[in-house]
Amino acid sequence: MNNDRMPNISMLTDFYEMTMGNGYLKYFGEKTAYFDAFFRRIPDGGGFAVCAGLESVVDYISNLRFTGEDIDYLRGQNIFSAEFLEYLRDFKFVCDVWAIPEGTPVFPGEPLVTVRGPVAQAQLLETALLLLVNHQSLIATKANRIVRAADGRAVSEFGARRAHGTSSALFAARSAYIAGCANTSNVMAAQQFDIPCSGTMAHSWVQMFGSEYEAFAAYAETYPDACVLLIDTYNVLKSGLPNAIKAFDNVLVPMGKRPLGVRIDSGDIAYLTKKIRQRLDAAGYPDCKIVVSNSLDERIIRDTLMQGAKIDFFGVGERLVTSETEPVFGGVYKLCAVEENGEIVPKIKISENPQKITTPYFKKVYRLYERDTGKAIADVVTAYDETIDDTQPYEIFDPDFTWKRKIVTNFRARLITERIFDGGRLVYKLPDINSIKKYCAEQIDTLWGEVTRFENPHNYYVDLSQRIWDIKHDILEKEQYNI
Amino acid sequence: MNNDRMPNISMLTDFYEMTMGNGYLKYFGEKTAYFDAFFRRIPDGGGFAVCAGLESVVDYISNLRFTGEDIDYLRGQNIFSAEFLEYLRDFKFVCDVWAIPEGTPVFPGEPLVTVRGPVAQAQLLETALLLLVNHQSLIATKANRIVRAADGRAVSEFGARRAHGTSSALFAARSAYIAGCANTSNVMAAQQFDIPCSGTMAHSWVQMFGSEYEAFAAYAETYPDACVLLIDTYNVLKSGLPNAIKAFDNVLVPMGKRPLGVRIDSGDIAYLTKKIRQRLDAAGYPDCKIVVSNSLDERIIRDTLMQGAKIDFFGVGERLVTSETEPVFGGVYKLCAVEENGEIVPKIKISENPQKITTPYFKKVYRLYERDTGKAIADVVTAYDETIDDTQPYEIFDPDFTWKRKIVTNFRARLITERIFDGGRLVYKLPDINSIKKYCAEQIDTLWGEVTRFENPHNYYVDLSQRIWDIKHDILEKEQYNI
Repeated sequence: MNNDRMPNISMLTDFYEMTMGNGYLKYFGEKTAYFDAFFRRIPDGGGFAVCAGLESVVDYISNLRFTGEDIDYLRGQNIFSAEFLEYLRDFKFVCDVWAIPEGTPVFPGEPLVTVRGPVAQAQLLETALLLLVNHQSLIATKANRIVRAADGRAVSEFGARRAHGTSSALFAARSAYIAGCANTSNVMAAQQFDIPCSGTMAHSWVQMFGSEYEAFAAYAETYPDACVLLIDTYNVLKSGLPNAIKAFDNVLVPMGKRPLGVRIDSGDIAYLTKKIRQRLDAAGYPDCKIVVSNSLDERIIRDTLMQGAKIDFFGVGERLVTSETEPVFGGVYKLCAVEENGEIVPKIKISENPQKITTPYFKKVYRLYERDTGKAIADVVTAYDETIDDTQPYEIFDPDFTWKRKIVTNFRARLITERIFDGGRLVYKLPDINSIKKYCAEQIDTLWGEVTRFENPHNYYVDLSQRIWDIKHDILEKEQYNI
Repeated sequence: MNNDRMPNISMLTDFYEMTMGNGYLKYFGEKTAYFDAFFRRIPDGGGFAVCAGLESVVDYISNLRFTGEDIDYLRGQNIFSAEFLEYLRDFKFVCDVWAIPEGTPVFPGEPLVTVRGPVAQAQLLETALLLLVNHQSLIATKANRIVRAADGRAVSEFGARRAHGTSSALFAARSAYIAGCANTSNVMAAQQFDIPCSGTMAHSWVQMFGSEYEAFAAYAETYPDACVLLIDTYNVLKSGLPNAIKAFDNVLVPMGKRPLGVRIDSGDIAYLTKKIRQRLDAAGYPDCKIVVSNSLDERIIRDTLMQGAKIDFFGVGERLVTSETEPVFGGVYKLCAVEENGEIVPKIKISENPQKITTPYFKKVYRLYERDTGKAIADVVTAYDETIDDTQPYEIFDPDFTWKRKIVTNFRARLITERIFDGGRLVYKLPDINSIKKYCAEQIDTLWGEVTRFENPHNYYVDLSQRIWDIKHDILEKEQYNI
């Protein structure tokens, strides 16, 4: 596909990006600024997030332009200068962009995206960039929790009808697939993003026929190779399951076919699936899978499996597609430097709350892995021009409690920040979706169990290089009486 | 605008709508079915929901068609009949649709949308119709709670960056405006839907300048008629507010202008706004408004106001745009009747859980209002061909506890269900957004305080007409040993 995957959303920006842009142009012209997108807290108290949304950001930026109608609309606000409106009309994206690729496990405080360019332009990206990265990272992170809870069983993304609008449904399906879901029920997402599609019947199918058995027989006859029957329209054990077995016996088996599965969407999952399994096995269908759905999330899935539920597939809808337990991914976009006479001058946002103080300067992120196990040890945020030489011992330290230090040896350092745009030109080859999915699984596999567990996970280290720490603390020392 | 407000989302459907459609065509041809969209529970334990999304549903339906590429994609799934693919290729929408207009307060169990038509078509609408109605009703309901908490003060919708994708941001802005928000920060939503737009500056504006005062002076100079200064980049009371007052004194007043406001986005809102108010008044700016933002919702707003916070405007972002405390609006779409030989045959979905049993038949909704006060008494779900004669006493009764009865007199009955499509032709004139907003406020005004309060609101009555009750209970009596 080309850059038409997404309609032009150049105007999808907070109005203040425009008021500031207009003012920046007036006071700073083409002055270069640096902005970082990062987040402060992992949803659901998890140990890591999965970043996603970069492909959409590339599409957004590639389509950045303002129509005559847009310019007229802005002119009608009566506050923008003719010069700014002309700048937008002739808009040409010239920024540099760096980002951590989709599917990477990421941690609070590290720049997921860095934008360098004329301040009015770099500022303008804020709203849409955050919207895309926040939404898709939220869903990827949640979906991966659900997939981990399912413990090797397949999870289908079923949530379109409860998504927050059409693009929510589409990109949730994509993010969920990247993060480990097996497929989606959403036909448009499947088609657009090359994701396997799944779905069989609703209760209405069963209601349309004179009897449940007739409905099942008709379905088996129509889809002998993909026969999954929904057995809870009336009563699962008294009617749904016996009728399903009868349809398998009378329709499928004579055709030389085997049933794919039965699905339940209500009732006590642990109790029912154990009964269903026994009876399917006894009826000669040990190969018939059991699919469950009904407001599932990672906690319900885990609890149900711990009670010995016999489940092969999970269909997860509203609680995945909305990240129901925590529907906000709080990524922010902050000015971290400007250029003055060719020199990079760090910029910081001070706060009374130390957690809200930003890390200044033009930065990138290294991930350090143990050579013996391949496991990730820590991330180090360095200046843009630093390298970490992994043939030498390297000292990392806690940026808050600086006496906590560790010398790392026998490790591999990998720069996880990649160049995406160079002077406005796309220089990054967007990976295909299955490569992203595979990379995501591999990278999550490099995390210790201490980081991936759900309850009280270990705080993965995101450290600052000595140089970045010094830049930050030099400013804090100077500003200490102004806070 | 025309029907191009939304891209074609015909393929945005759960795969099972397609597998069922293919089978329906085979077994039932053009047989007529009736489906209702309704919801079972009001988010946040509220007393009512605000329905929204109808305009999008009209757009969706008006654009329903499948491209050659879509047909090829479906053919590639290798399970659809040539006849079904041809049916989709030549798709012509011929259904009838009824709905409750946008902005109406609505209650569990009543049909928000009813679709009548060939079963394969009527079924096909399920996913997208629910997605649009669920999302927009969710946000309208939440936004109205927030607006009510603000108690007459203006609320701006600020949430784009935390929305679940681009259409989430756009339609959340629209839904919030309908439900009472004064404006949005989202330029694209403002432009597309004719909503006022607002926004001033971020912390980055302040950081870009050599000092906070310079940043404020530049802003005042650039926007003398729309000067709202963000005063919490460093320290609100020690630096932000004094610098703002200095900029008002030195820049605005000499231009003969007055400041619009100051904004804070962090810190203790109750404490800070009282201090700010005192100091602005003392400095000769009693007309300067105070704007606050920072992860607000209805509970925080109410609590803050109860502590005497001095606030004129609220900017509400992530907790509105995601309906953070309850991000799922659980609308469902259920078969309620079919036609056999020209007769309407009721269809029901049985469940062990009485709350999940559907109400069968082809229905519409009346709302009864007291003539003296104009207040709403109850909704009555009747058969499609019943009328309620409000010149005569009318008996309503609780559909579960049928001994709870009441004879209503001196009332006005209003049919709140409207015809939208007639045989596939749009016959409803979509109201403009400001009419919807006005209608919404008026209709919410007809609800008693018992229904609109946040904690333990009164259960508004949604009753069934005797005829609908009889149809439902006749089936339940027959099916009682099958449940």
